Parts: sequence; structure tokens; C-alpha cells
Amino acid sequence: MKNFFLAALLFPVIISAQNMNDDSLFIHKIAADILSSNASYNNLHYLTKNIGGRLSGSPQMYRAEQWGINALKEAGADNVTMQQCMVPHWVRGGQDKAFIVYNDEKGKQQKYWLNILALGNSIGSGANGVQASLIRVNNFDDLEAKKNELKGKIIFYNVPFDDTLINTFNAYEKNVVYRGIGASRAAKYGAVAMMMRSMTNTPGNYPHTGSLHYTDSINKIPAAAMGLYDVQKLDSLFDNNITVTASLFTYGMMLPDTIAHNIIGELKGSEHPEQIITVGGHLDSWDPAEGANDDGTGVVQTIEVLRVLKALNYQPKHTIQFVLFANEENGTRGAKKYAEEAKKNNEQHIFALESDAGGFTPRGFSFDCSDTIMQKINAWKPLFIPYYGERFERGEAGADVGYLKGLNTPQAGLNPDNQRYFYIHHAATDVFENVDIREMKLGAVNMAALIYLVDKYGLQ
Amino acid sequence: MKNFFLAALLFPVIISAQNMNDDSLFIHKIAADILSSNASYNNLHYLTKNIGGRLSGSPQMYRAEQWGINALKEAGADNVTMQQCMVPHWVRGGQDKAFIVYNDEKGKQQKYWLNILALGNSIGSGANGVQASLIRVNNFDDLEAKKNELKGKIIFYNVPFDDTLINTFNAYEKNVVYRGIGASRAAKYGAVAMMMRSMTNTPGNYPHTGSLHYTDSINKIPAAAMGLYDVQKLDSLFDNNITVTASLFTYGMMLPDTIAHNIIGELKGSEHPEQIITVGGHLDSWDPAEGANDDGTGVVQTIEVLRVLKALNYQPKHTIQFVLFANEENGTRGAKKYAEEAKKNNEQHIFALESDAGGFTPRGFSFDCSDTIMQKINAWKPLFIPYYGERFERGEAGADVGYLKGLNTPQAGLNPDNQRYFYIHHAATDVFENVDIREMKLGAVNMAALIYLVDKYGLQ
Repeated sequence: MKNFFLAALLFPVIISAQNMNDDSLFIHKIAADILSSNASYNNLHYLTKNIGGRLSGSPQMYRAEQWGINALKEAGADNVTMQQCMVPHWVRGGQDKAFIVYNDEKGKQQKYWLNILALGNSIGSGANGVQASLIRVNNFDDLEAKKNELKGKIIFYNVPFDDTLINTFNAYEKNVVYRGIGASRAAKYGAVAMMMRSMTNTPGNYPHTGSLHYTDSINKIPAAAMGLYDVQKLDSLFDNNITVTASLFTYGMMLPDTIAHNIIGELKGSEHPEQIITVGGHLDSWDPAEGANDDGTGVVQTIEVLRVLKALNYQPKHTIQFVLFANEENGTRGAKKYAEEAKKNNEQHIFALESDAGGFTPRGFSFDCSDTIMQKINAWKPLFIPYYGERFERGEAGADVGYLKGLNTPQAGLNPDNQRYFYIHHAATDVFENVDIREMKLGAVNMAALIYLVDKYGLQ
Repeated sequence: MKNFFLAALLFPVIISAQNMNDDSLFIHKIAADILSSNASYNNLHYLTKNIGGRLSGSPQMYRAEQWGINALKEAGADNVTMQQCMVPHWVRGGQDKAFIVYNDEKGKQQKYWLNILALGNSIGSGANGVQASLIRVNNFDDLEAKKNELKGKIIFYNVPFDDTLINTFNAYEKNVVYRGIGASRAAKYGAVAMMMRSMTNTPGNYPHTGSLHYTDSINKIPAAAMGLYDVQKLDSLFDNNITVTASLFTYGMMLPDTIAHNIIGELKGSEHPEQIITVGGHLDSWDPAEGANDDGTGVVQTIEVLRVLKALNYQPKHTIQFVLFANEENGTRGAKKYAEEAKKNNEQHIFALESDAGGFTPRGFSFDCSDTIMQKINAWKPLFIPYYGERFERGEAGADVGYLKGLNTPQAGLNPDNQRYFYIHHAATDVFENVDIREMKLGAVNMAALIYLVDKYGLQ
């Protein structure tokens, strides 16, 4: 009896050690396959160089959808479906431009061109542009203090990234409200246009676009972001109390909603086909670049997880859906649709994983799940150490899989290193050349490992 | 009594929590200061752009020594000393070049230039060059199998990086023996020169140099590394059984040993001035580039640790020596001297920290110390999580501080992310532009935090 008791105590540990070893070997195979394969390089190259920027409703978006169907099929999906949704259709409409005019110390009038990009969803100034004197504000408190001076002016929000915040997403989240509602807040006091310091911590002069949200009850005004050299130029003028007049020319317009699709590749589950695991990234991207890190890499990693599981002849117990989401950038309508359909059809979504933070070297994951599930997941941590993905944090998983919280789906987001993400985010620099392929692959290795473990052991 | 006993039990925990909080606040100050300061940017810019490559014995090395003295003084060292040592003095001597000649499928003779760099410490071919037919070998086993064919030939070692090894230093360490002794192993069988695939995992065509060590008893032959496009070209010829003749022109020569110096800045300890903590990087670098990541960043981070401790008015208990080591690349004579002097003078070196793995985003440290000390250090791990430096591993600390193992000094090396290090290592691409300043600073934050904790609590 004594020995039996001892054996009973030890048995789970022995099983667990054996599993750990099997899992370690399988994840090693995942890594060796992904790191030796050219598939993800080729996929990212095609998506960025042959298709390019692919904003919702653009011709490139439709080409990307077709490409996604083929890529998922080639990677080995049992089936690929298109899930239709309606998406906002904003177009830039022309070449954004702006300049300022001021008198230099000798009283001579100077004209200086700014490097700008209209914010997504913003209205255009039209060909005649908006011309008005420019007023600098440092934050919303400053805006309120200057509210009586704003009428007829162009407001310039100069809110720098907080470089002392180590996670650059925290700096981004602190400031993104200016991009989101800054135009309407200024329009309320009569401002006629808005320009802002780009949401970036990199020097250089690339403007960074991104979504704006007008308040319906307030007059809509044109809005644009500028590069940081231009911000320095403006600062030097304002710091010397020089009067600055700005002219802004943007052409954005919101067309009627149009059709788009989530592209869903599936591996059917062998034991619990009714239980669904989701892996995804978003297929759309802002127009000024190639959407390489945002979110070409997430899309390619998603396809890579599928490819490697098939390549290693892995038979999933649960159904795995590989989702290329539509319209993350200016509406998240694809994600909403995916969650709505799941709810309507009473689908069981047992786990969802998103990659939408760039193709940089991985650090780990953000988990949005219960403490009990987190405890289970934490036991897998040692398996991720060899692949630099062992930093398991609690937090938001991602903008797209987030909608599955309505179904109580435990979820995770890949966390790549974030130090350089806002150098390229929504800017012309988000191109293939600024993705390190090996680092992107290493992210895919960690994603595939997590999906494998969730599928093999479940989360209950 | 009962309460007293309980208090006694709880007390250390309370103290510890309070300390943890103080430490967390102080490290936060370290981070805010380093991330907001331009000092490290300016230092790295000067060292790389105004001085540049600084191989032992070169004029740039002497300029770097003078610069280092000033930089340590400006950062606030109580005193700066020059510790003299004799270093090897290898010079490249000219512009390395090589080409191959072969007959194409139409029987027409073709000439193709290779992009090469002579290996450090290698002898030159002289102006007439070495011309001979080229023989490809894949590894030392292959060399032995072909030993009877080597006489009079130029050997071409084609040993690729193992991309499936996640830590790229493991791939490097697996292959570095070919650079180290490949020439002598081939010369033993009569080879007249050696060319090798560069020690890198990046495509592109930059050759990567580095140290070679001749076996004294064997005839010395010229040796060079080539870029990976050229390797592909050679492979395509060899794979088609095409006879290739190579011509190699190198001009390297070893001059008599010359004088160099470790540059040592010091902060005197207030409680245990006789106990020394060392922080260091190496000042020398290979000649083809600017030694930006190898090891400009380690040097600049070392100075930054000093600067921030002074800026925050931190009074160290122990003496901290900030050491810019001489001659890491082709002799480690500076490090040997530093350890020799320490031993001779019966100095107590209680801890040493090195940064010599690039300025990439930090992951943590390699610790070379006892289990007891490791346990103590592991308790500090939570303090490093906010700064992405919490990955504490056991392993070698670094080539320079390694010599302090003779004094049983516990030691550590900063581990930045390693995925991209061998893209630029010892190649013309190791320039300022390929350092991310924010990532380098974040490395310095973690180094300063570790030095602060070791100084405050000791390791015993």
C-alpha cells in the first residue's frame, strides 16, 4: 500500500515529465521547420511588394483577400471560406500637403513645407485648402485654457511620446486620444483644421497616420499628422513667439460602406471538431506603406502556424481557424462580424491568439483569461524559454480577438519586442525591408508552440 | 512573546518589501535619466563617426584611449587611469581582393570578383597574390577525406550557420573553429591559401573578418572571408563540377607588439573602498567598420552606468571601476593585464559585469557565479521585469571579465537580443546607423540596476 501510494503520488509527475519531453521535441521540430523554410519570407514579400498598402475598400484589399485564400490553401488548410462584412471605405483622395508662412528675424516672409499625412477617416480640405493662423497646444488642459483663442485657427497638438515609459505601447496609448478626438475637441471651440505631432518616438520626418473619430454633433474639420523634424521647426518658431500661418490641403472622404471579407482557413479537429481555436492577424493596412509590420507579419505568422502543423503532420484535436481579419485599422468590422457569427451559431471558441504588434523578436504573450487558465498556461513556460517567448503577462490580447470576449473566450496576443514598433507604425517606413525575417519566424515558432499546447491539452 | 515571535518572523519580509520598493523607485530614476539623456547618443556618435574602427596599435586606438579618458571624466569619475599593456599589432596593409576564373557552359573564360576581407592576424599574399585552383570543403571531416588533394590548392571552407540554433551565438561558436584554425589545418596538407564563408547568417555580400590563430609549426598561409552572395556563386560552380581557379591578394602583417592601455574610471567606495566592482566593454574594434555594436555600445553603456550613478548622486559603498578594455579582438591582452595586476596587488574583486554582445534590446544577463550567489541575484529578478532584463541565465560572462575568474570573481554579461548580431559582427555594416539608441540605453538601464543592487547589498 505504501508503495502504491507513493506511485500514485509520483505518477502524475512522471507523466508530466514525459509529456514535457515530447512537447519539447515537437516544438523543436516546429522551430527547425519554420526557421529553415522560405515560405514566410515569400508570403511577406508578395503581400508587401506585389500588393502593398491595402486599406479597407481599396483594390489592394481585394487582391489581398484573393492572395490570402491561395496562401491558406497552399499552407494546407482543409477548407478556406470568405466571411462577408461591410467595412468603412475611406479614401485619401489625393496628395496631402501643407506649408507654413512666417516672417524671419529680418522681417522677410518665409515659406516652409511640412511633411504631412491626413488622418484616416478625416474629411478633406478640398483643393482650395484651409488657411489660417496656427496655434500650438501641449495637451487638452492647454486646449481648454486657450479655448477662446481657437476660433478660425488651425490647432497644432504637440504631445510628445513619453520616452521614459519602457513599453512603447504605453506611451502610444497615453497619446492616441489626441489623434482620436483631438480634431473634434478643437472644432468645438471653432478651430478650422487640426495638425498634430505624429504618434512616434523616432526622429526623422515621416508622418504617421491612423484613425480619427469625429464627434457627430460637432463640425468636422480636416486633420493631419506631421513628422518630428517639422515639429522641431514649428517649436523653434513658437518658442520665439513668431506668428505662423498654415495652409493645409487634404482630400480625404468617406464613401459608402463596402463589402470585405475575413479570410478563414480551417483545420478540422479530430476529437472535438465543434471546439474552435482561432489564430489571426489583420489583412488590411494603412495606405502610405506596405503594411509590413502592421500587420503583414501577423498575417504571415498565422499562415505559418498552419503550414508548420501540416508539414509536421500534426492532427489537431480541436478545429483551428486561421483568420485573416478584415478592417482592423478603421473599424474592426471583420472582427465584429467573426464574433457575431460565432455567437449567432452558438460556436464554442475555446481559445484565440492574435499577432498584431509587429514582426520583431518575440518576448512572450499577453493573456486575457481566468486565473485558473493562467495557472495552467504558466506551467508551459519552460517550453518557451529556448525560443525567447517565455514572458507571460496578463493583459489585452488584441483588437480583433478581443471581440470574442463576448463569448468568454480565453485569449492571447503575441508580444514582440516593442522598442522600435512606433518608428514605422502607420508610416511610409512600414515596408518589407524593415521586417527582420528571422525575428518574424521566431514569433511564429512561439505562436505555433502555444497553439499546439492549447490544442493538445485544452485549457479546462 | 507570541507577538514578538511573529514580528521577528515578519520583520525581514517587511524590510525586504520596503527595500524592494526603494530599489524599484531608484531603478525607475535610473531608467528615466538614461532614456531622457543624449549622453550615450553623443558618445557613441563620436566614437564611431569621429574615431571609427580602432584596431590595437592603430592611430584610432590611441585617439579612442584619449577620448575614453575624457568621456569617463565628463561622466563624473573620481579619477581616470591608464593601465599599460603590450598588444599585438596587426595591420591589414592594403586593399584585400580576390577573383575567380572559370569556363562557362560555352567554354568561354569568365572572371568574377569576390568581396573579401583578410582574416585578422593573417599573413598577406603580397602584391603578386596567390593563384591556384580552388577546392571546396564542407567541414573538417571533409577536409580529412580530401587531404591528398589539397597540395598547392586554395581551400574554400563552406560551413553555413546553423539557422535552427535559436541563440545565434551557439551557431557562431559551432563554426568559429574554422576561422580560428582552418588555415593551419589546410596548410598542414599543403594548401597555399584559405578562403571561407563568412561567419554570418545574413544574406548580402559583406565579408566578416575576425581572429585567426596559426599553429606555429605549420606553414602560414593567407586567409580571407567572403560574403554570402559570393559563396552562392561558388556553390553554383562547384555543384556543376566546374573547375575554379582563384587569385587572392592580401597584405596583412604582424608588426612587433606595441603599447596600449586599459582606460579605468573609478568611483571610490564609501564603506568598502578596497572591494572592487568592475563594469566594462572593449575599446578596440576591427578595422573595416566603426565598431559600433562591437563594442562601441558596451563602452558607451559602461560610461553611462557611471554617468547615471553620479547624476543621481548615488554614493557607492564599494569602489566601482569602469573599464574600457584594450585589445579584446585579437589578444585580450588588456583583460589579462587587468586581472594580473589585480592578482599581484591582492585586490578584492567582488563582481564584474561586461557588455560585449551588441547594443540590441536587452533580455537579461549570463551569470558565472556560485549557486548561492545566483540564488541571491534571482531574488532581484522582479526589479528587472519592467526593463525587459529579467532573463537570468547561467553561463559565460564575457571574454574580458572572464580573466577575473582567476580571482574567483562572480561575474555577469549583458545579454541583448542576439538574433541580428551576426549580421554586422566584424563586417563593414557595424556602424552607428545599425545601433538603435533606445535599445542600447535600455541595456545600460539594466546594467546600472544590477551594479546598484550588487553595490547596495553585496553578494555574500
